[in-house]
Amino acid sequence: MDAPLRALVFDVFGTLVDWRGGIAREVRAVLGARVPDPEAFADDWRAQYQPTMERVRSGEWPFAKLDVLHRVNLDRVLADRGLNDVDEATRAELNLAWHRLDAWPDVTPGLMRLRERFRLAPCSNGNISLMVDLARRNGFPWDAILGAELARDYKPKAVVYLSAAAAFDGAPGETLMVAAHSSDLESAAVAGLRTAFVGRPDEKGPGLGERVATVPVDFSVASLIALAERFGV
Amino acid sequence: MDAPLRALVFDVFGTLVDWRGGIAREVRAVLGARVPDPEAFADDWRAQYQPTMERVRSGEWPFAKLDVLHRVNLDRVLADRGLNDVDEATRAELNLAWHRLDAWPDVTPGLMRLRERFRLAPCSNGNISLMVDLARRNGFPWDAILGAELARDYKPKAVVYLSAAAAFDGAPGETLMVAAHSSDLESAAVAGLRTAFVGRPDEKGPGLGERVATVPVDFSVASLIALAERFGV
Repeated sequence: MDAPLRALVFDVFGTLVDWRGGIAREVRAVLGARVPDPEAFADDWRAQYQPTMERVRSGEWPFAKLDVLHRVNLDRVLADRGLNDVDEATRAELNLAWHRLDAWPDVTPGLMRLRERFRLAPCSNGNISLMVDLARRNGFPWDAILGAELARDYKPKAVVYLSAAAAFDGAPGETLMVAAHSSDLESAAVAGLRTAFVGRPDEKGPGLGERVATVPVDFSVASLIALAERFGV
Repeated sequence: MDAPLRALVFDVFGTLVDWRGGIAREVRAVLGARVPDPEAFADDWRAQYQPTMERVRSGEWPFAKLDVLHRVNLDRVLADRGLNDVDEATRAELNLAWHRLDAWPDVTPGLMRLRERFRLAPCSNGNISLMVDLARRNGFPWDAILGAELARDYKPKAVVYLSAAAAFDGAPGETLMVAAHSSDLESAAVAGLRTAFVGRPDEKGPGLGERVATVPVDFSVASLIALAERFGV
Protein backbone atom coordinates (compact mmCIF):
# COMPACT_ATOMS: atom_id res chain seq x y z
CA MET A 1 0.00 0.00 0.00
CA ASP A 2 1.58 3.24 -1.15
CA ALA A 3 1.72 6.24 1.18
CA PRO A 4 -0.75 8.96 0.22
CA LEU A 5 0.68 11.67 -1.99
CA ARG A 6 1.20 15.04 -0.34
CA ALA A 7 2.97 17.07 -2.97
CA LEU A 8 3.40 17.26 -6.73
CA VAL A 9 6.59 18.63 -8.24
CA PHE A 10 7.00 19.39 -11.92
CA ASP A 11 9.56 19.50 -14.63
CA VAL A 12 8.98 22.76 -16.51
CA PHE A 13 10.80 23.06 -19.87
CA GLY A 14 8.81 20.92 -22.29
CA THR A 15 6.50 19.53 -19.61
CA LEU A 16 4.71 22.78 -18.73
CA VAL A 17 5.97 25.30 -21.26
CA ASP A 18 6.75 25.20 -24.98
CA TRP A 19 10.41 26.16 -24.97
CA ARG A 20 10.97 25.56 -28.68
CA GLY A 21 8.14 27.75 -29.93
CA GLY A 22 8.85 30.46 -27.37
CA ILE A 23 12.58 30.65 -28.00
CA ALA A 24 12.02 30.71 -31.76
CA ARG A 25 9.54 33.58 -31.34
CA GLU A 26 11.97 35.57 -29.20
CA VAL A 27 14.92 34.91 -31.56
CA ARG A 28 12.78 36.12 -34.44
CA ALA A 29 11.82 39.26 -32.50
CA VAL A 30 15.34 40.12 -31.34
CA LEU A 31 17.57 39.00 -34.22
CA GLY A 32 15.12 39.13 -37.13
CA ALA A 33 16.50 38.23 -40.56
CA ARG A 34 19.95 37.54 -39.15
CA VAL A 35 18.59 34.15 -38.05
CA PRO A 36 16.62 32.64 -40.95
CA ASP A 37 15.88 29.44 -38.99
CA PRO A 38 14.77 30.43 -35.46
CA GLU A 39 13.47 26.92 -34.62
CA ALA A 40 16.87 25.45 -35.47
CA PHE A 41 18.48 28.20 -33.36
CA ALA A 42 16.26 27.13 -30.45
CA ASP A 43 17.26 23.50 -30.99
CA ASP A 44 20.96 24.43 -31.08
CA TRP A 45 20.66 26.48 -27.90
CA ARG A 46 18.82 23.69 -26.13
CA ALA A 47 21.36 21.13 -27.35
CA GLN A 48 24.02 22.86 -25.23
CA TYR A 49 21.87 22.48 -22.11
CA GLN A 50 22.93 19.05 -20.86
CA PRO A 51 26.66 19.35 -21.66
CA THR A 52 26.94 22.67 -19.83
CA MET A 53 25.00 21.44 -16.79
CA GLU A 54 27.21 18.39 -16.73
CA ARG A 55 30.17 20.63 -15.96
CA VAL A 56 28.36 21.66 -12.76
CA ARG A 57 27.13 18.16 -11.95
CA SER A 58 30.64 16.76 -12.36
CA GLY A 59 32.14 19.37 -10.06
CA GLU A 60 34.23 20.96 -12.80
CA TRP A 61 32.32 24.22 -12.32
CA PRO A 62 30.79 25.52 -9.09
CA PHE A 63 27.02 25.83 -9.07
CA ALA A 64 25.79 28.66 -11.27
CA LYS A 65 22.13 29.39 -11.91
CA LEU A 66 20.66 28.34 -15.23
CA ASP A 67 20.48 31.92 -16.53
CA VAL A 68 24.27 31.95 -16.35
CA LEU A 69 24.60 28.64 -18.19
CA HIS A 70 22.05 29.75 -20.80
CA ARG A 71 24.22 32.77 -21.47
CA VAL A 72 27.36 30.67 -21.92
CA ASN A 73 25.41 28.53 -24.36
CA LEU A 74 23.94 31.50 -26.21
CA ASP A 75 27.38 32.97 -26.80
CA ARG A 76 28.47 29.63 -28.26
CA VAL A 77 25.46 29.37 -30.57
CA LEU A 78 25.97 32.92 -31.81
CA ALA A 79 29.65 32.24 -32.45
CA ASP A 80 28.83 29.03 -34.33
CA ARG A 81 26.66 31.12 -36.66
CA GLY A 82 29.22 33.85 -37.14
CA LEU A 83 27.10 36.35 -35.19
CA ASN A 84 29.94 37.65 -33.04
CA ASP A 85 28.90 41.27 -33.51
CA VAL A 86 25.65 40.90 -31.55
CA ASP A 87 26.10 43.40 -28.73
CA GLU A 88 25.97 42.82 -25.00
CA ALA A 89 22.57 44.41 -24.43
CA THR A 90 21.03 42.27 -27.16
CA ARG A 91 22.57 39.11 -25.72
CA ALA A 92 21.31 39.95 -22.23
CA GLU A 93 17.82 40.61 -23.56
CA LEU A 94 17.78 37.44 -25.66
CA ASN A 95 18.98 35.37 -22.72
CA LEU A 96 15.77 36.30 -20.90
CA ALA A 97 13.76 34.59 -23.65
CA TRP A 98 13.62 31.58 -21.32
CA HIS A 99 11.65 33.74 -18.85
CA ARG A 100 8.99 34.44 -21.49
CA LEU A 101 7.77 31.00 -22.51
CA ASP A 102 4.12 30.08 -22.80
CA ALA A 103 2.43 27.14 -21.13
CA TRP A 104 0.70 24.35 -22.98
CA PRO A 105 -3.05 25.08 -22.79
CA ASP A 106 -3.89 22.39 -20.21
CA VAL A 107 -1.26 23.44 -17.68
CA THR A 108 -2.69 26.37 -15.74
CA PRO A 109 -6.24 24.97 -15.49
CA GLY A 110 -4.79 21.60 -14.49
CA LEU A 111 -2.58 23.12 -11.80
CA MET A 112 -5.50 25.13 -10.42
CA ARG A 113 -7.40 21.88 -9.86
CA LEU A 114 -4.43 19.91 -8.51
CA ARG A 115 -3.74 22.72 -6.06
CA GLU A 116 -6.96 21.91 -4.21
CA ARG A 117 -5.47 18.61 -3.05
CA PHE A 118 -1.68 18.92 -3.16
CA ARG A 119 1.19 21.26 -2.50
CA LEU A 120 2.68 22.21 -5.86
CA ALA A 121 6.12 23.38 -6.95
CA PRO A 122 8.38 23.27 -9.95
CA CYS A 123 11.31 20.89 -9.62
CA SER A 124 13.17 22.29 -12.59
CA ASN A 125 16.75 23.04 -13.48
CA GLY A 126 15.61 26.61 -14.08
CA ASN A 127 16.57 29.20 -11.48
CA ILE A 128 14.15 30.81 -9.07
CA SER A 129 13.72 34.12 -10.93
CA LEU A 130 13.13 32.27 -14.19
CA MET A 131 10.44 30.14 -12.54
CA VAL A 132 8.90 33.26 -10.99
CA ASP A 133 8.66 35.00 -14.35
CA LEU A 134 7.09 31.94 -16.00
CA ALA A 135 4.63 31.68 -13.11
CA ARG A 136 3.60 35.32 -13.38
CA ARG A 137 3.28 35.12 -17.17
CA ASN A 138 1.18 31.96 -17.14
CA GLY A 139 -0.59 32.10 -13.77
CA PHE A 140 1.01 29.01 -12.26
CA PRO A 141 -0.24 28.73 -8.64
CA TRP A 142 2.98 27.50 -7.02
CA ASP A 143 3.33 27.10 -3.28
CA ALA A 144 7.11 27.44 -3.53
CA ILE A 145 9.90 27.35 -6.10
CA LEU A 146 11.94 24.20 -5.56
CA GLY A 147 14.52 22.53 -7.81
CA ALA A 148 18.10 23.20 -8.83
CA GLU A 149 18.73 26.56 -7.15
CA LEU A 150 17.53 25.21 -3.80
CA ALA A 151 19.59 22.03 -4.21
CA ARG A 152 22.57 23.85 -5.75
CA ASP A 153 22.99 21.05 -8.26
CA TYR A 154 21.21 19.90 -11.40
CA LYS A 155 18.83 17.08 -12.26
CA PRO A 156 19.13 14.20 -12.69
CA LYS A 157 21.25 14.28 -9.52
CA ALA A 158 19.16 12.76 -6.73
CA VAL A 159 19.69 15.72 -4.39
CA VAL A 160 17.42 17.87 -6.55
CA TYR A 161 14.44 15.51 -6.25
CA LEU A 162 15.14 14.77 -2.58
CA SER A 163 15.50 18.42 -1.59
CA ALA A 164 12.12 19.15 -3.19
CA ALA A 165 10.41 16.33 -1.28
CA ALA A 166 12.08 17.40 1.97
CA ALA A 167 11.15 21.06 1.55
CA PHE A 168 7.49 20.01 1.54
CA ASP A 169 8.08 17.76 4.58
CA GLY A 170 7.27 14.68 2.53
CA ALA A 171 9.03 11.37 2.26
CA PRO A 172 10.16 10.78 -1.34
CA GLY A 173 7.34 8.23 -1.68
CA GLU A 174 4.79 10.88 -0.71
CA THR A 175 5.95 13.12 -3.56
CA LEU A 176 5.01 12.81 -7.23
CA MET A 177 7.42 13.97 -9.92
CA VAL A 178 5.58 15.00 -13.10
CA ALA A 179 7.53 15.22 -16.35
CA ALA A 180 7.36 14.68 -20.09
CA HIS A 181 10.78 13.00 -20.16
CA SER A 182 11.39 9.37 -19.29
CA SER A 183 14.96 10.03 -18.21
CA ASP A 184 13.85 12.60 -15.63
CA LEU A 185 11.23 10.23 -14.25
CA GLU A 186 13.63 7.32 -14.11
CA SER A 187 16.02 9.36 -11.99
CA ALA A 188 13.21 10.59 -9.75
CA ALA A 189 12.05 7.00 -9.23
CA VAL A 190 15.56 5.89 -8.32
CA ALA A 191 15.57 8.67 -5.70
CA GLY A 192 12.35 7.17 -4.31
CA LEU A 193 9.74 9.55 -5.70
CA ARG A 194 6.58 8.42 -7.41
CA THR A 195 6.26 9.43 -11.05
CA ALA A 196 3.75 10.71 -13.57
CA PHE A 197 4.46 10.94 -17.28
CA VAL A 198 2.62 13.56 -19.31
CA GLY A 199 2.92 13.20 -23.05
CA ARG A 200 4.19 16.21 -25.01
CA PRO A 201 4.56 14.67 -28.46
CA ASP A 202 5.37 17.96 -30.20
CA GLU A 203 7.85 19.35 -27.67
CA LYS A 204 10.89 19.19 -29.92
CA GLY A 205 9.02 19.86 -33.14
CA PRO A 206 6.00 18.12 -34.67
CA GLY A 207 6.03 14.49 -33.53
CA LEU A 208 9.49 14.78 -32.00
CA GLY A 209 8.55 14.70 -28.30
CA GLU A 210 7.85 11.67 -26.15
CA ARG A 211 4.36 10.29 -26.66
CA VAL A 212 4.67 7.43 -24.20
CA ALA A 213 7.06 6.77 -21.34
CA THR A 214 9.89 4.34 -22.01
CA VAL A 215 10.32 3.53 -18.32
CA PRO A 216 7.85 2.27 -15.69
CA VAL A 217 5.80 5.11 -14.17
CA ASP A 218 2.99 5.30 -11.63
CA PHE A 219 0.73 7.43 -13.83
CA SER A 220 0.71 8.20 -17.53
CA VAL A 221 -1.53 10.95 -18.88
CA ALA A 222 -1.91 13.21 -21.89
CA SER A 223 -2.44 16.44 -19.94
CA LEU A 224 -2.57 17.94 -16.46
CA ILE A 225 -6.35 18.04 -16.77
CA ALA A 226 -6.25 14.27 -17.15
CA LEU A 227 -3.95 14.04 -14.13
CA ALA A 228 -6.39 16.10 -12.06
CA GLU A 229 -9.21 13.82 -13.16
CA ARG A 230 -7.18 10.80 -12.14
CA PHE A 231 -7.11 12.23 -8.60
CA GLY A 232 -10.76 13.25 -8.71
CA VAL A 233 -10.05 16.95 -8.29
CA MET B 1 20.48 58.26 -6.46
CA ASP B 2 19.32 54.89 -5.22
CA ALA B 3 18.74 52.04 -7.65
CA PRO B 4 15.05 51.31 -8.21
CA LEU B 5 13.63 48.60 -5.99
CA ARG B 6 12.82 45.33 -7.72
CA ALA B 7 11.86 43.02 -4.90
CA LEU B 8 10.48 43.15 -1.37
CA VAL B 9 11.34 40.45 1.15
CA PHE B 10 9.65 40.11 4.51
CA ASP B 11 10.27 38.97 7.99
CA VAL B 12 7.25 36.88 8.99
CA PHE B 13 6.96 36.09 12.73
CA GLY B 14 5.71 39.27 14.34
CA THR B 15 5.97 41.32 11.16
CA LEU B 16 3.25 39.54 9.16
CA VAL B 17 1.68 37.11 11.62
CA ASP B 18 0.71 37.28 15.28
CA TRP B 19 2.80 34.45 16.70
CA ARG B 20 1.97 35.14 20.33
CA GLY B 21 -1.80 35.09 19.96
CA GLY B 22 -1.71 32.12 17.59
CA ILE B 23 0.58 29.98 19.70
CA ALA B 24 -1.44 30.75 22.83
CA ARG B 25 -4.64 29.73 21.01
CA GLU B 26 -3.08 26.45 19.85
CA VAL B 27 -1.61 25.68 23.29
CA ARG B 28 -5.02 26.24 24.79
CA ALA B 29 -6.64 23.96 22.22
CA VAL B 30 -4.10 21.14 22.55
CA LEU B 31 -3.12 21.21 26.24
CA GLY B 32 -6.16 22.88 27.78
CA ALA B 33 -6.12 23.31 31.57
CA ARG B 34 -2.67 21.78 31.85
CA VAL B 35 -1.31 25.16 30.75
CA PRO B 36 -3.11 27.88 32.72
CA ASP B 37 -1.04 30.66 31.11
CA PRO B 38 -0.88 29.99 27.34
CA GLU B 39 0.49 33.45 26.50
CA ALA B 40 3.38 32.90 28.90
CA PHE B 41 3.89 29.46 27.33
CA ALA B 42 4.13 31.17 23.93
CA ASP B 43 6.65 33.66 25.34
CA ASP B 44 8.73 30.87 26.87
CA TRP B 45 8.73 28.91 23.61
CA ARG B 46 9.72 31.98 21.62
CA ALA B 47 12.43 32.83 24.15
CA GLN B 48 14.27 29.63 23.16
CA TYR B 49 14.27 30.71 19.50
CA GLN B 50 17.46 32.76 19.31
CA PRO B 51 19.64 30.55 21.55
CA THR B 52 18.76 27.41 19.58
CA MET B 53 19.33 29.09 16.20
CA GLU B 54 22.65 30.37 17.52
CA ARG B 55 23.84 26.76 17.76
CA VAL B 56 23.33 26.50 13.99
CA ARG B 57 24.75 29.94 13.22
CA SER B 58 27.86 29.20 15.27
CA GLY B 59 28.43 25.90 13.49
CA GLU B 60 27.90 23.80 16.61
CA TRP B 61 24.93 22.13 14.93
CA PRO B 62 24.48 21.47 11.20
CA PHE B 63 21.62 23.32 9.55
CA ALA B 64 18.23 21.99 10.61
CA LYS B 65 14.94 23.50 9.53
CA LEU B 66 13.05 25.65 12.03
CA ASP B 67 10.39 22.98 12.62
CA VAL B 68 13.17 20.82 14.05
CA LEU B 69 14.45 23.62 16.30
CA HIS B 70 10.92 24.49 17.40
CA ARG B 71 10.50 20.88 18.51
CA VAL B 72 13.73 20.93 20.53
CA ASN B 73 12.49 24.09 22.17
CA LEU B 74 9.00 22.73 22.81
CA ASP B 75 10.40 19.71 24.60
CA ARG B 76 12.41 22.03 26.82
CA VAL B 77 9.42 24.26 27.65
CA LEU B 78 7.30 21.22 28.48
CA ALA B 79 10.04 19.83 30.72
CA ASP B 80 10.44 23.17 32.48
CA ARG B 81 6.75 22.99 33.35
CA GLY B 82 6.84 19.38 34.50
CA LEU B 83 4.77 18.25 31.51
CA ASN B 84 6.99 15.31 30.62
CA ASP B 85 4.04 12.97 30.10
CA VAL B 86 2.76 14.81 27.02
CA ASP B 87 2.88 12.13 24.33
CA GLU B 88 4.71 12.16 21.02
CA ALA B 89 1.62 12.66 18.86
CA THR B 90 0.55 15.66 20.94
CA ARG B 91 4.01 17.20 20.73
CA ALA B 92 4.12 16.72 16.97
CA GLU B 93 0.69 18.31 16.61
CA LEU B 94 1.52 21.21 18.88
CA ASN B 95 4.78 21.85 17.05
CA LEU B 96 2.74 22.61 13.93
CA ALA B 97 1.08 25.50 15.78
CA TRP B 98 3.64 27.74 14.05
CA HIS B 99 2.08 26.71 10.70
CA ARG B 100 -1.33 27.98 11.84
CA LEU B 101 -0.73 31.60 12.72
CA ASP B 102 -2.97 34.44 11.55
CA ALA B 103 -1.81 37.56 9.73
CA TRP B 104 -2.29 41.06 11.06
CA PRO B 105 -5.30 42.52 9.19
CA ASP B 106 -3.33 44.82 6.89
CA VAL B 107 -0.94 42.16 5.60
CA THR B 108 -2.77 40.29 2.86
CA PRO B 109 -4.42 43.38 1.31
CA GLY B 110 -1.09 45.20 1.50
CA LEU B 111 0.78 42.36 -0.18
CA MET B 112 -1.82 42.15 -2.93
CA ARG B 113 -1.14 45.78 -3.77
CA LEU B 114 2.64 45.56 -3.47
CA ARG B 115 2.61 42.53 -5.75
CA GLU B 116 1.55 44.74 -8.65
CA ARG B 117 4.92 46.46 -8.60
CA PHE B 118 7.42 44.11 -6.94
CA ARG B 119 8.46 40.52 -6.64
CA LEU B 120 7.57 39.37 -3.13
CA ALA B 121 8.92 36.65 -0.87
CA PRO B 122 9.33 35.89 2.79
CA CYS B 123 12.89 36.17 4.07
CA SER B 124 12.18 34.39 7.33
CA ASN B 125 13.94 31.91 9.53
CA GLY B 126 10.89 29.69 9.10
CA ASN B 127 11.24 26.68 6.83
CA ILE B 128 9.63 26.38 3.41
CA SER B 129 6.70 24.17 4.44
CA LEU B 130 5.93 26.46 7.36
CA MET B 131 5.89 29.47 5.04
CA VAL B 132 3.71 27.56 2.57
CA ASP B 133 1.15 26.73 5.25
CA LEU B 134 1.02 30.33 6.47
CA ALA B 135 0.63 31.52 2.88
CA ARG B 136 -2.25 29.13 2.18
CA ARG B 137 -3.96 30.00 5.47
CA ASN B 138 -3.70 33.75 4.98
CA GLY B 139 -3.62 34.16 1.20
CA PHE B 140 -0.11 35.60 0.95
CA PRO B 141 0.68 36.03 -2.79
CA TRP B 142 4.36 35.03 -2.69
CA ASP B 143 6.41 34.64 -5.84
CA ALA B 144 8.81 32.29 -4.07
CA ILE B 145 9.78 31.18 -0.58
CA LEU B 146 13.21 32.55 0.24
CA GLY B 147 15.03 32.78 3.57
CA ALA B 148 16.79 30.39 5.91
CA GLU B 149 16.09 27.05 4.22
CA LEU B 150 17.39 28.37 0.89
CA ALA B 151 20.47 29.90 2.57
CA ARG B 152 20.93 26.95 4.96
CA ASP B 153 21.71 29.36 7.77
CA TYR B 154 19.76 31.72 9.98
CA LYS B 155 19.26 35.47 10.13
CA PRO B 156 20.90 37.73 11.05
CA LYS B 157 23.72 36.05 9.08
CA ALA B 158 24.24 38.08 5.91
CA VAL B 159 23.97 35.04 3.64
CA VAL B 160 20.23 34.84 4.32
CA TYR B 161 19.54 38.38 3.11
CA LEU B 162 22.00 38.10 0.23
CA SER B 163 20.65 34.78 -1.02
CA ALA B 164 17.15 36.27 -1.11
CA ALA B 165 18.30 39.26 -3.15
CA ALA B 166 20.28 37.02 -5.51
CA ALA B 167 17.40 34.59 -6.04
CA PHE B 168 15.36 37.48 -7.41
CA ASP B 169 18.32 38.59 -9.58
CA GLY B 170 18.59 41.83 -7.67
CA ALA B 171 21.56 43.61 -6.21
CA PRO B 172 21.18 43.98 -2.44
CA GLY B 173 20.44 47.67 -2.99
CA GLU B 174 17.55 46.78 -5.29
CA THR B 175 15.94 44.68 -2.55
CA LEU B 176 13.88 45.98 0.36
CA MET B 177 13.80 44.04 3.63
CA VAL B 178 10.58 44.66 5.56
CA ALA B 179 10.48 43.84 9.27
CA ALA B 180 9.08 44.88 12.62
CA HIS B 181 12.41 44.37 14.36
CA SER B 182 15.24 46.89 14.33
CA SER B 183 17.89 44.21 14.80
CA ASP B 184 16.75 42.38 11.66
CA LEU B 185 16.79 45.60 9.64
CA GLU B 186 20.18 46.63 10.96
CA SER B 187 21.66 43.33 9.77
CA ALA B 188 19.91 43.58 6.40
CA ALA B 189 21.30 47.09 5.94
CA VAL B 190 24.82 45.93 6.78
CA ALA B 191 24.39 43.29 4.03
CA GLY B 192 23.50 46.12 1.64
CA LEU B 193 19.72 45.81 1.45
CA ARG B 194 17.36 48.72 1.81
CA THR B 195 15.03 48.57 4.78
CA ALA B 196 11.46 49.25 5.80
CA PHE B 197 10.26 49.19 9.38
CA VAL B 198 6.64 48.33 10.07
CA GLY B 199 5.46 48.97 13.59
CA ARG B 200 3.85 46.07 15.47
CA PRO B 201 3.52 47.60 18.92
CA ASP B 202 1.54 44.69 20.38
CA GLU B 203 3.62 41.84 18.96
CA LYS B 204 4.93 40.57 22.28
CA GLY B 205 1.86 41.52 24.30
CA PRO B 206 0.03 44.83 24.63
CA GLY B 207 2.53 47.63 24.10
CA LEU B 208 5.50 45.26 24.16
CA GLY B 209 6.43 45.34 20.47
CA GLU B 210 8.52 47.92 18.66
CA ARG B 211 6.59 51.06 17.82
CA VAL B 212 9.45 52.89 16.14
CA ALA B 213 12.72 51.71 14.69
CA THR B 214 15.81 52.22 16.83
CA VAL B 215 18.13 52.14 13.81
CA PRO B 216 18.18 54.20 10.60
CA VAL B 217 15.78 52.80 7.98
CA ASP B 218 14.73 53.85 4.48
CA PHE B 219 11.01 53.67 5.21
CA SER B 220 8.99 53.55 8.40
CA VAL B 221 5.29 52.72 8.28
CA ALA B 222 2.49 51.49 10.50
CA SER B 223 1.15 48.87 8.09
CA LEU B 224 1.69 47.23 4.71
CA ILE B 225 -1.20 49.31 3.39
CA ALA B 226 0.80 52.40 4.28
CA LEU B 227 3.86 50.89 2.58
CA ALA B 228 1.85 50.26 -0.59
CA GLU B 229 0.62 53.85 -0.48
CA ARG B 230 4.19 55.05 -0.14
CA PHE B 231 4.95 53.36 -3.46
CA GLY B 232 1.72 54.57 -5.05
CA VAL B 233 0.34 51.08 -5.62
